[in-house]
Amino acid sequence: MPHIPLPSHLPGITGLLEYSQDTADPIRELTQILLRGDSTLSQGERELVATVVSHNNECTFCTTAHTAAADLLLGESVTCEMVKKDIDAAPVSSKMKALLKIAKLVQQSGKAVTEEAVSIAKAEGATDLEIHDTVLIAALFCLYNRYVDGLASVTPTNPEFYEYLGERIVNHGYNRLPQGYDHLKK
Amino acid sequence: MPHIPLPSHLPGITGLLEYSQDTADPIRELTQILLRGDSTLSQGERELVATVVSHNNECTFCTTAHTAAADLLLGESVTCEMVKKDIDAAPVSSKMKALLKIAKLVQQSGKAVTEEAVSIAKAEGATDLEIHDTVLIAALFCLYNRYVDGLASVTPTNPEFYEYLGERIVNHGYNRLPQGYDHLKK
Repeated sequence: MPHIPLPSHLPGITGLLEYSQDTADPIRELTQILLRGDSTLSQGERELVATVVSHNNECTFCTTAHTAAADLLLGESVTCEMVKKDIDAAPVSSKMKALLKIAKLVQQSGKAVTEEAVSIAKAEGATDLEIHDTVLIAALFCLYNRYVDGLASVTPTNPEFYEYLGERIVNHGYNRLPQGYDHLKK
Repeated sequence: MPHIPLPSHLPGITGLLEYSQDTADPIRELTQILLRGDSTLSQGERELVATVVSHNNECTFCTTAHTAAADLLLGESVTCEMVKKDIDAAPVSSKMKALLKIAKLVQQSGKAVTEEAVSIAKAEGATDLEIHDTVLIAALFCLYNRYVDGLASVTPTNPEFYEYLGERIVNHGYNRLPQGYDHLKK
């Protein structure tokens, strides 16, 4: 049961964004820019960063939702599964491996990001902005994971919910749904 | 040295917000709402939440800046110093002690926030919204601390810088400074 009364039909982050709409707007905007804005990292690659951080924070809601989004964007589910288990063995570029490792370090703490980890990413072709965005996406999901679990929001157990949420994220992004799309809230 | 080229005259978070202005806007807006918006928690109490999280994340830049802001708002420096060392011994209300302990749990992880910690806060008179805001402020500073240290932004060592930043935070809040206030950037 959530620590505070949240809308019972809106689990995980969705109920929190409804509970506190004034803070939800900039959180949504920041996420939309970082995960859906122009970038030399694909949307799927950025969802992998979100997933690996959520996985290491043991946030089941965020991990399952962003795995669903990554799987849809990548067109397969092997990569995301491997990234969570063993980045080096995952079928992603050497640059992405280095960036995902930086994200995992950010999950631990800011100070855990070493000069060496950044040097490897740069040697593999990562740009300054890609490194910046990876760190900030990882930091943002450290916020999300703590928000979702820190208030004990409901974590659905039916896979259909996450399939629906993954589709919504991929097709509508992170902005508030416009009026008339209320049916998508289910 | 920062992991990416940041404006050398803007240390800590200030250079990062200048480096990536599109993401800076929602980060500033979220902070302004949470730390300066209408609330039954005083601005000083909210700065204590920011400080205790930054302190436990060992982020020297954020800890020193928000200590300076808290000290200015509270009109003394004993409370913030005590909060960092021993919440129970600090001269704050029983409700604030309970909320600060929740913030410390959020710093560890979302899942660390126990039903018991929330029950104590409620028994001491904390409202649902105060608990929500405490968790979200704590989560936001887990983002900030990782952003600042994850990119190895510069941490000034001269106390004057933090006095200036504390004054700026207290007098101008977290929004972008309007044009004409460039002298405040120092």
